[in-house]
Amino acid sequence: MHLYFSEFHDKGTGIIFKIKKEVYSAVSPYQEIKIFDTCTYGRLLVLDGLVMLTEKDEFVYHEMLVHPAFSFKSVVKKAGVIGGGDGGTIREILKYRDVEEAYLIEIDRMVVEASKKYLPFTASSLKDERVKIFFEDGIRFLNVREEGFDLLFVDSSDPVGPAKALYSKEFYESIRRNLKEDGIVVFQSESPWYHLEIIKKQIDGLSEFFNEVRLYFAPVPTYPGGFWSFTMATNKKLKKQRDFIPPGLRYFNESVRENLFWLPEFVKNVTG
Amino acid sequence: MHLYFSEFHDKGTGIIFKIKKEVYSAVSPYQEIKIFDTCTYGRLLVLDGLVMLTEKDEFVYHEMLVHPAFSFKSVVKKAGVIGGGDGGTIREILKYRDVEEAYLIEIDRMVVEASKKYLPFTASSLKDERVKIFFEDGIRFLNVREEGFDLLFVDSSDPVGPAKALYSKEFYESIRRNLKEDGIVVFQSESPWYHLEIIKKQIDGLSEFFNEVRLYFAPVPTYPGGFWSFTMATNKKLKKQRDFIPPGLRYFNESVRENLFWLPEFVKNVTG
Repeated sequence: MHLYFSEFHDKGTGIIFKIKKEVYSAVSPYQEIKIFDTCTYGRLLVLDGLVMLTEKDEFVYHEMLVHPAFSFKSVVKKAGVIGGGDGGTIREILKYRDVEEAYLIEIDRMVVEASKKYLPFTASSLKDERVKIFFEDGIRFLNVREEGFDLLFVDSSDPVGPAKALYSKEFYESIRRNLKEDGIVVFQSESPWYHLEIIKKQIDGLSEFFNEVRLYFAPVPTYPGGFWSFTMATNKKLKKQRDFIPPGLRYFNESVRENLFWLPEFVKNVTG
Repeated sequence: MHLYFSEFHDKGTGIIFKIKKEVYSAVSPYQEIKIFDTCTYGRLLVLDGLVMLTEKDEFVYHEMLVHPAFSFKSVVKKAGVIGGGDGGTIREILKYRDVEEAYLIEIDRMVVEASKKYLPFTASSLKDERVKIFFEDGIRFLNVREEGFDLLFVDSSDPVGPAKALYSKEFYESIRRNLKEDGIVVFQSESPWYHLEIIKKQIDGLSEFFNEVRLYFAPVPTYPGGFWSFTMATNKKLKKQRDFIPPGLRYFNESVRENLFWLPEFVKNVTG
């Protein structure tokens, strides 16, 4: 007998995984958390029925959320992550020696605890002494502070339920307040195949607070449509300021960096 | 009640479609052919259990198989397609007025007949007077000819069973013989997530017959991993020779063309 887990991305299409076994299941104050061993993608983290990461392909998502922005900053002393309780984004940030502080602001302590136990390939990064974890609502955290981040990464859930506020103008404004003047924020921004209207809304919203707002993509096979978008926003000019690329990356490299910003016609038609 | 169709890409992961109804089903001398109406991706063509195209996303695959090569040729008088009985590749080729002849060499007449009837969005192109259809084995067709194609597109099934010979050196050699000296061939070359060894083998094989062999990618959500590769081979220098891009494309544009050739690190590590 085999279990199957499937996530539908719309009313008729989805991804299906053959499951070896369930290794963790809990309901936190915020969401249902499940971790499975799959037959071919290693460990799988599912929040409220949606694939958050698999052991096999999380490297693409985490590398592409983090490394492009680093290449536009010569020095990053302080970086922050909103969400990202699995630790994958922090893991990539820590690959830069100039980083002195990496903040993780994650609302759900149970995601972090489960990740530390069952997803060491991402969460072991959280033990690093440069990491400070705040179990708080990211919106409220930024709302009352001026942290002076060089880089901020919004590694959030999909914009349904509480995560919806992560797409609000109040949030964009408090991000700008918590960034240094030449800081950069990067949002995971959903699938161009399923969420093009969300992407457009986010670009339009961010454009009210930042001069440069750029969309880029990466292929993540276990996310809806197998193709994911990221939105980068800043008030400085985006130009390469760092040659160093951490050794051992599996997706990001010089050739990806040099061809970062392109838009398929069906995306351009919507986002302008 | 709903039917579901699923294709597994390995022993544990796949795509699943909710089906409205089966509109065609037959077994030809070469393969099992099925056409469905899906709930969210329109018409779906399945050969031997594998997704060949859906109405919603076929544009990416067909545009990206065809248009990059055209941009490297100032004039294309004669183009050929091996496989591609659904007509989508021919449809894109015919968007260039300089094309005088477009050959379709498709082994399976029943695929063409079914496509004409049930997939008009791709197959209506086959009625154009510039099109010549040969219901023949592509390998045997090229083997005994010297056609002088400007461009050849290998729009084949996956390299299992009879299509395996499409990855042989004899085939590469007969392609070179059927191309003009400055001709270009483009292969669909499978998913970097599931077929990296095939991609490598194909690049290595083609490199024995062509000076320039370049891999490029496009996101096709209903193909394994949602991300597809194409391999272009030629004995001339690849440089832009045509500004014209046909109006009405939905994926390919100037920005895609200018950022065509990049390789993620995990691909580069294998293909070199």
